[in-house]
Amino acid sequence: MSEQINISLPDGAVRSYPKGSSALEIARSISEGLARKVLAADVNGEVWDATRPLQQDASLKLLTWDDAGGKNTFWHSSAHLMAEAIEAMFPGVKFWVGPPVDNGFYYDVDLGDHTINEDDLRALEKKMNELAKQNNYFVRKEITKADALQYFNEKGDEYKLDLLQNLQDGEITFYTQGNFTDLCRGPHIPGTGIIKAIKLTNIAGAYWKGDEKNKQLTRIYGVTFPSQKQLDEYLVLLEEAKKRDHRKLGKELGIYTMDDDVGQGLIMWMPNGTVIIEELEKLAKETENAAGYKRVVTPHIAKESMYLTSGHLPYYADSMYPPMELEGEKYYLRSMNCPHHHKIYAAEPKSYRDLPYRIAEYGTVYRYEQSGELFGLMRVRCLHMNDAHIYCTKDQFNDEFRAVNEMYLKYFKIFGIDKYVMRLSLHSPDKLGIKYVNEPELWQETETMVRNVLQESNIPFVEVQDEAAFYGPKIDVQIYSVIGREFTLATNQVDFSQGRSFKLTYITPDNHTDTPLIIHRAPLGTHERFIGFLLEHYAGKLPLWLAPVQVKILPISDKFMEYAKSLLNKLKKADIRAEIDDRSEKIGRKIRDTEMLRVPYMLVVGEKEVNEGKVSIRRQGIGDLGSKDVDTFLNEVVEEVRERRADDLK
Amino acid sequence: MSEQINISLPDGAVRSYPKGSSALEIARSISEGLARKVLAADVNGEVWDATRPLQQDASLKLLTWDDAGGKNTFWHSSAHLMAEAIEAMFPGVKFWVGPPVDNGFYYDVDLGDHTINEDDLRALEKKMNELAKQNNYFVRKEITKADALQYFNEKGDEYKLDLLQNLQDGEITFYTQGNFTDLCRGPHIPGTGIIKAIKLTNIAGAYWKGDEKNKQLTRIYGVTFPSQKQLDEYLVLLEEAKKRDHRKLGKELGIYTMDDDVGQGLIMWMPNGTVIIEELEKLAKETENAAGYKRVVTPHIAKESMYLTSGHLPYYADSMYPPMELEGEKYYLRSMNCPHHHKIYAAEPKSYRDLPYRIAEYGTVYRYEQSGELFGLMRVRCLHMNDAHIYCTKDQFNDEFRAVNEMYLKYFKIFGIDKYVMRLSLHSPDKLGIKYVNEPELWQETETMVRNVLQESNIPFVEVQDEAAFYGPKIDVQIYSVIGREFTLATNQVDFSQGRSFKLTYITPDNHTDTPLIIHRAPLGTHERFIGFLLEHYAGKLPLWLAPVQVKILPISDKFMEYAKSLLNKLKKADIRAEIDDRSEKIGRKIRDTEMLRVPYMLVVGEKEVNEGKVSIRRQGIGDLGSKDVDTFLNEVVEEVRERRADDLK
Repeated sequence: MSEQINISLPDGAVRSYPKGSSALEIARSISEGLARKVLAADVNGEVWDATRPLQQDASLKLLTWDDAGGKNTFWHSSAHLMAEAIEAMFPGVKFWVGPPVDNGFYYDVDLGDHTINEDDLRALEKKMNELAKQNNYFVRKEITKADALQYFNEKGDEYKLDLLQNLQDGEITFYTQGNFTDLCRGPHIPGTGIIKAIKLTNIAGAYWKGDEKNKQLTRIYGVTFPSQKQLDEYLVLLEEAKKRDHRKLGKELGIYTMDDDVGQGLIMWMPNGTVIIEELEKLAKETENAAGYKRVVTPHIAKESMYLTSGHLPYYADSMYPPMELEGEKYYLRSMNCPHHHKIYAAEPKSYRDLPYRIAEYGTVYRYEQSGELFGLMRVRCLHMNDAHIYCTKDQFNDEFRAVNEMYLKYFKIFGIDKYVMRLSLHSPDKLGIKYVNEPELWQETETMVRNVLQESNIPFVEVQDEAAFYGPKIDVQIYSVIGREFTLATNQVDFSQGRSFKLTYITPDNHTDTPLIIHRAPLGTHERFIGFLLEHYAGKLPLWLAPVQVKILPISDKFMEYAKSLLNKLKKADIRAEIDDRSEKIGRKIRDTEMLRVPYMLVVGEKEVNEGKVSIRRQGIGDLGSKDVDTFLNEVVEEVRERRADDLK
Repeated sequence: MSEQINISLPDGAVRSYPKGSSALEIARSISEGLARKVLAADVNGEVWDATRPLQQDASLKLLTWDDAGGKNTFWHSSAHLMAEAIEAMFPGVKFWVGPPVDNGFYYDVDLGDHTINEDDLRALEKKMNELAKQNNYFVRKEITKADALQYFNEKGDEYKLDLLQNLQDGEITFYTQGNFTDLCRGPHIPGTGIIKAIKLTNIAGAYWKGDEKNKQLTRIYGVTFPSQKQLDEYLVLLEEAKKRDHRKLGKELGIYTMDDDVGQGLIMWMPNGTVIIEELEKLAKETENAAGYKRVVTPHIAKESMYLTSGHLPYYADSMYPPMELEGEKYYLRSMNCPHHHKIYAAEPKSYRDLPYRIAEYGTVYRYEQSGELFGLMRVRCLHMNDAHIYCTKDQFNDEFRAVNEMYLKYFKIFGIDKYVMRLSLHSPDKLGIKYVNEPELWQETETMVRNVLQESNIPFVEVQDEAAFYGPKIDVQIYSVIGREFTLATNQVDFSQGRSFKLTYITPDNHTDTPLIIHRAPLGTHERFIGFLLEHYAGKLPLWLAPVQVKILPISDKFMEYAKSLLNKLKKADIRAEIDDRSEKIGRKIRDTEMLRVPYMLVVGEKEVNEGKVSIRRQGIGDLGSKDVDTFLNEVVEEVRERRADDLK
């Protein structure tokens, strides 16, 4: 009998296999169906080729398309497949790097004098499909530096030679599939046959090593799937997402603007965007007021000493703006609101009677993001955050945390967010005192409390080990727009540590001093990201209560302006945001233009309406609703706004 | 007949007087009564001794207590009178400088080993009164540097010798009254007899030349008046102002706090202060919305290029925070909102149909003030400004400017501000193209328009030549608290220039491009200054609509808690800010504590109230209002809030 090794599986089972078995073989021993889906394997926390022999006891997780590790491996292998096709079509091509990205993969290549075009992409797709059908295996080979150098010297690829410079014997591997060999750390999928659907999406220029003094390479983007159906769905989503692009809608609807003199990533909210901001803040204030929060207003800067106490400096300095030096002191633009709020807590002595103490602020913070990573409203440098901090006793924690979760759910309902996931990040007991505050009991206690609250509230969540914050467990909230795109909304954190760092205390009923627990929460995230999400989610057709202009009055001709103005006054008196289209355009043109601006209600006003004292109503996305009494219409829109009603988005 | 000179008086008259006549003699020629009030004279724009002979034609204004120049001279002479008394009581004392200040004067003196105390101050006051009664004249003498050096060498006063170092022959004068001679540029009042009432108010230490490495001198503060009645009134005001001190009230009422780790002059608004902020912003938004303003939200930083375009750099750099350097760019914390608003204007093309374009923001700006000048909420480094910019055509200017003024008056009425002055600052035609934009016609036109609007609206105003902004006439608005203290609220400016600098344009009806005029306005000033003003104005007893807690429910014992809670719910549902005092304290104590917190309404709840379904009402500052039905009370407070009613402050 050959030598055996013990393999621990995620369900806790430990099975014995012959030494040298691969993850793929182990999958087959479970079920052929499972084996067909295996793309890679997580071996003791590291992603491996599913075909690589296991020589020792290990904990093993089989990775499929549903795991990030599986998907990334699939796309990385697709980059190699594309490279094989490129080399077949353009002999002599040189390769730089070809990583997986958020939605697919790319490869940076030097095609010499050839400029690649759309026709080339289609031809490459065809070639890739041919090569995929051959189902060539990805073969891993450990190789010496000398041999590797010789290979790429012979091939004349100076880019790979450059990559080899920093590698040593023992850490160099080649991967080969079909006729293509690449210097690559791996891992890869078992064979090219798993790649069933291929789309090359884009061509771009990219300077070698990102340095504009270097040669410009050609970056070819693609995306692949294990089935044609998935690709088709993805392309439909892409098309839909393009229509719903928040940058396009943001401009068309006058939501926001940016300017070179102000600076990259610094959003200026135009009047229409500001209406949305104010409605969101109104909702937050109402909700928080009802939940017993008080509000504060704090400055956007603080001295270095504050961020040394909080621990943001020096560790977080890279994502902060550089300091301003004044009177021998360094001042920083804040990248979070917590320290200022802790100072408000500390400004007056507190007793247990003052807890829970909940303070909220739509606080503005500044974060330095690399200019290359800035993206519309999604990645910015100035953020308006729906922030609050709850200071409470341990006894109060459960109720407070539950209330915060219920607030999230209440908001999801208002915005028609049906799909969301909460990711509960836990500590790792072996890293107490190193990566995590050394309070084993508090960790156990709060993690259990958090888990219980999530379960009791029937909130879908996944647990992740070893990803908590330094100071306590946290929840990352992911929401999905109506077209299924994922947005990270906010985190919800428990904090044992900052209270102590800032020497926050309260007097207990038995006259001792204790440190409060702190909950950090921001259920509406930031205005920037949330409004970006809403624009996509609603395709710009915001619900009535959020719409910058709620009602547009369209007189058929100037004769009806007086009636239009009397309508305008009535609507304004009822706090409805209304305007008159007083241009001398045909009514058809007025309707089309108003539709383009996604105004929810249009009131067409002509002879008949004036005589009958009525309005003819058109609803955005629905069409003609017939005519109604002015007061009936008015009451209906007021009610629709008051209820913050949203159309069914399906 | 002696040689004559021509004297132009402020009313336009030109009179002829013998050469060598003094302003005091000229005053006497007009009326003895006037002469008795003359403290100094404005001769061709320079303040002179009223007794100094006029040798040439001149334009002359007689300065009295009502002129800043007159008052300052009076207080400067009082400093000399105090010095005379100090030298009489403490022979050998040495003198540094003794200037007038905002409310009185001080002198920095070196008393050797003597430490001055309150008894000394009373004795000095007595001595000063004696010397004042002697009515010694202030005698001016031009003196050579050599003689001046000899005088102070003999006296052994190294401080005055230090002052002499930087002076040259021809610019040195001595002033003598009674037995005291000082090195002094002047001017002074005619004689000490005019000083009728004297109060020495304070003793402080002050390092020589403000440098803490130097010797510490004694700074003695005093204030004087031309009549005892004025001093008495001033002392009452001082006492009242002390009680109304916004720093004291700000702490007692939990309005704001500051913290060393955040930084000097950076206000953190606590929950009670934030309620006031939000009520003020609500008022501003309602008012501005009704007046056709739109709202925007812009970031607090911008690149150097923005402030080079606006002209704030390099000229205004000293009052800005230093820049942050990022990716080779300099970013500045903004010290005003205008440039960001101009960028919003420019973000979309405009036609005459879009004007007037009014955009408002409670914008936060950061200004560097010397740490020694910071003072509570009055002088801070972070300001929340009730800002807006109106972009309009020349034809629209008149109406727009009038509307802004009416908005000021509307606010004054709401806040019971009965006394206010607007200071219209005009350009000087001989400085066109130097200190002022070279647009003589636009200056004439807008100055006339502004003046007409002020006159038509019956707004009290004074005109000041040569104090306009670079880009147009401006109005400084001064308001007076109920105890008569003056606060500079805001400026209201016309601007021809920034529109051009930022290349702002609109298409005219005849299809040309033109540059809009801009009105900068901030009728509620900054939250910091305005709330500081309100705390003094109302002595902390804010009107119901502004009060952080509007109603406090005081159950006589725990038995009545259920009823108290039902009241609380009713009040909260009606958006009334209410709390229960649930401490187990006697009702008398509860009432006293609630009075201290300046809560407008107290509802005392006991057996009787529960049985009758009523509430017993106490009103802050008035007392018992008897008992009422719950609903009657509720309707009354809701109405009082809705109307933003304020008590008569007298």
